[in-house]
Order: sequence, then structure tokens, then C-alpha cells
Amino acid sequence: MKSRGKDMKTKDGKLPFCAMGVSSVIHPKNPHVPTIHFNYRYFEIEEADGNKQWWFGGGTDLTPTYLNQNDVVHFHQTLKEACDKHNPGFYPKFKKWCDDYFFIKHRGERRGVGGIFFDDLDSASRDELFQFVNSCAKAVVPCYIPIVTKHKNDSFSPEEKLWQQLRRGRYVEFNLVYDRGTKFGLATPGSRIESILMSLPLTARWEYMHIPPPDSREAEILKVLREPQDWVH
Amino acid sequence: MKSRGKDMKTKDGKLPFCAMGVSSVIHPKNPHVPTIHFNYRYFEIEEADGNKQWWFGGGTDLTPTYLNQNDVVHFHQTLKEACDKHNPGFYPKFKKWCDDYFFIKHRGERRGVGGIFFDDLDSASRDELFQFVNSCAKAVVPCYIPIVTKHKNDSFSPEEKLWQQLRRGRYVEFNLVYDRGTKFGLATPGSRIESILMSLPLTARWEYMHIPPPDSREAEILKVLREPQDWVH
Repeated sequence: MKSRGKDMKTKDGKLPFCAMGVSSVIHPKNPHVPTIHFNYRYFEIEEADGNKQWWFGGGTDLTPTYLNQNDVVHFHQTLKEACDKHNPGFYPKFKKWCDDYFFIKHRGERRGVGGIFFDDLDSASRDELFQFVNSCAKAVVPCYIPIVTKHKNDSFSPEEKLWQQLRRGRYVEFNLVYDRGTKFGLATPGSRIESILMSLPLTARWEYMHIPPPDSREAEILKVLREPQDWVH
Repeated sequence: MKSRGKDMKTKDGKLPFCAMGVSSVIHPKNPHVPTIHFNYRYFEIEEADGNKQWWFGGGTDLTPTYLNQNDVVHFHQTLKEACDKHNPGFYPKFKKWCDDYFFIKHRGERRGVGGIFFDDLDSASRDELFQFVNSCAKAVVPCYIPIVTKHKNDSFSPEEKLWQQLRRGRYVEFNLVYDRGTKFGLATPGSRIESILMSLPLTARWEYMHIPPPDSREAEILKVLREPQDWVH
């Protein structure tokens, strides 16, 4: 699957391909520990004339229930350092791509505070890009685990848990309505549904016309979800 | 919106229309009281040559957490009687349409035990069909409220509540992935999202590889969701 259509030369309507990837989502119980999602993948297609096309795709993104500026800066900074080692243009480009991709159009909100996202990546040699994707994958633990360690024992109120559940509802909306991988999977006959929908949270909530009070911590994160920020420079 | 495409003669790309409808969903707390949804609607379109097209659409359907055969028979019987007063062909046709429409393809399950569903209905005079839709709407209370009255004080276990929540997750999957009204609404710029998504339950749940034990009451309802039954003859 490529994000932009490209004509592929098929043979008898067939297009041999090879695809591999790793995908993971963590939805913590504690509303002060954000949700993380990452996915890294590689595609190879052999056209009828023997021409091989290949590309990498993937990304890592963070979905907090409440905004903690330091955490988000740490997350983005770690991803930026992983990108910068390979190409100084990668982070700004893939940060914006992430903000654009994880957009819940009908809500006018992003799913979270972003991270990096890319697809169709074949702009350098396969080995060089594999090294880049390796760096991204190796950045998952250092960008996220310090945030978990910092907040996993934070106490939380029933109201904070409720707000987390409403945000999880938005997560479900994005994944079922917009996520390309999910839509592609659901539409593929014989696909493994349990693997595709493992990205959904354990529980989620919807409330009619839930509008947080201005100047609340709930309104604070909403503002950031509506207007993506530059977290590192 | 018509379920099958029909060419409409536009004037300067415009197609004046008039649409009205009523839609309601009830997701009860008690897992022994089923969810009900009904929607009745009327469309009118004026083509460039002054020709008016109009049609009715709608339906009423039931989504129980557990199967209670008597309840489902009562529900279908009441809808059948409302249909039969107008056309003996309506109930069998609209019952099947309902089973076909509320199909969660990626799960191989219907959303619930059906009811009636129809669209593009212009097979008789407008007055006659308005009387039919009136009968359907008037059947909502007698098809559902006796079931509520019977079960609203039933006790339930945490396990029964949990199964209800998993079924609500499926309800969300159907509405966000397949429901035409929801998809149409989400894709319409400036639409009122809170009205469109009011069909979602307050809370829902997803569990990886949740498979109820054979011969359990959970497996019993799943069987019916996978193989729609004839409830009345």
C-alpha cells in the first residue's frame, strides 16, 4: 500500500509482494501516562518486467490525556535526535506528516501530540533507510519509558479517568474512521481482525456535547490537539 | 441520499432538496434490556426540469446482549403487524434488508437481531407510504417498552455487564465503519457531529481474542448474530 497512487505493472493481474512490519499500541490505565503507538514496516513489490519497488513506512506518536509540556518535549526531542543522525530534513517533514495524518477531521482535532510519521520512503539506498528505521525503532523505549516511569504512580481522580475514557473514544473514532492500515485491513477478505483491532483501547466513552470548562486542564490539551505545536527547534 | 445511484438532473450543479427525519437510540444500563434504534426519514429532490423525486426510508432494530427468544418474537411480531396492515410483502422484504444492512462484515456478525429496514421507498402514493411509515413509528413503543418493563429490574452480574460492553464495542464498529448515515454525516462539511455520533453508547470495551465458551449464553446470542433467524411466520 502506498500513500500516493503509483502505477504498477501487473502480470496476469498479479503483483507479487513481500510485506513486513511491527506495530504496537499501549493504552495505560493511569490517565497521567500517555498512550503510545509505533509501527515500522517494509514493502517490496515485483512488477511484471522484473522491476522491484520497495519502500519503508512507519512512525511513533504519543496520545496524552493531559498535557505535560516536558514530557512532550522529551518525546519529540528523542525522535528528532534519531532522525537527525540520518537526515536533518527528516524530523521537520515527518513531524508535520504525523500531525496531518492523525487528524480526526470531523472533530477538528489531532489524535494526540504527534511524533513522526512517514510512508513511501525510498529517497536513499535501502541500507541507509534501513539504518534510519532502525534508529527510529531504537528510539521508542527512550522516548516513552522515562514518561511511564515518571507518572506510573501518579494518583488520579475519577474525573481524570473519565476524561481519559472520552479521549479513548476519540482514539477509536480515528482508528475506525480514518486509519489507513485499519481500513485496509477491515476491507481485506480473510485478514486477521483481532490483530487489526488490537489498536483499540480496552474501554472507551462517549458523552453528548462534552465541553470542558475554559482554563481547565482538559481544555488545555484540546487546544494543543486543535493547533499542533512545535515542540523542539 | 439513495441506496442505489440514480441520475438526478442538476441545474448549475445544484439540486434543491428537502430532508427530514427522526432518529433515536437507547443504550440501557441493564444488560438484560436490549438496545433499540429507530429512524424514519423523508427526502424530496427537485430536479432541473421541475420534476420532483421523493422517497421514505427508515427502520427499527433491536440489539440484545443476551438472547431472549420471547422478546425477539414479540419485537418482530409487532413490527410485522405494523407492516402487514399496509402490504404483506413489506415485512419479509424489510426484515431481510435489515439483516443485510446491519452486517459487521469484518466480524461476520449482525449488529443485533434485526427488525425492519428500508430505503428509496416510493412504490405507492406518498400518502399511502406516509401512512405506512406512521404505522412503523407508532409500533416503536409497543415493540420495545414491554421488553423494558419486563427486564428493567432484572439483576445482573459483573460478567454480564462486561459482555454487554464488548457487544457495545461491536455497535461502535458497525456505526463508525459501515453505517451509511454516520459515514455520510462525518464526510459532510459543517455537519453537526454531536447529533451524528449520539448513536454511540456511553461506554464500550474491546478485548483481544475474546471467545465465549461453547454452550454459554454469550455463545448463544453470537450464533444468532452470525445466522439470522426467522422470528415470525
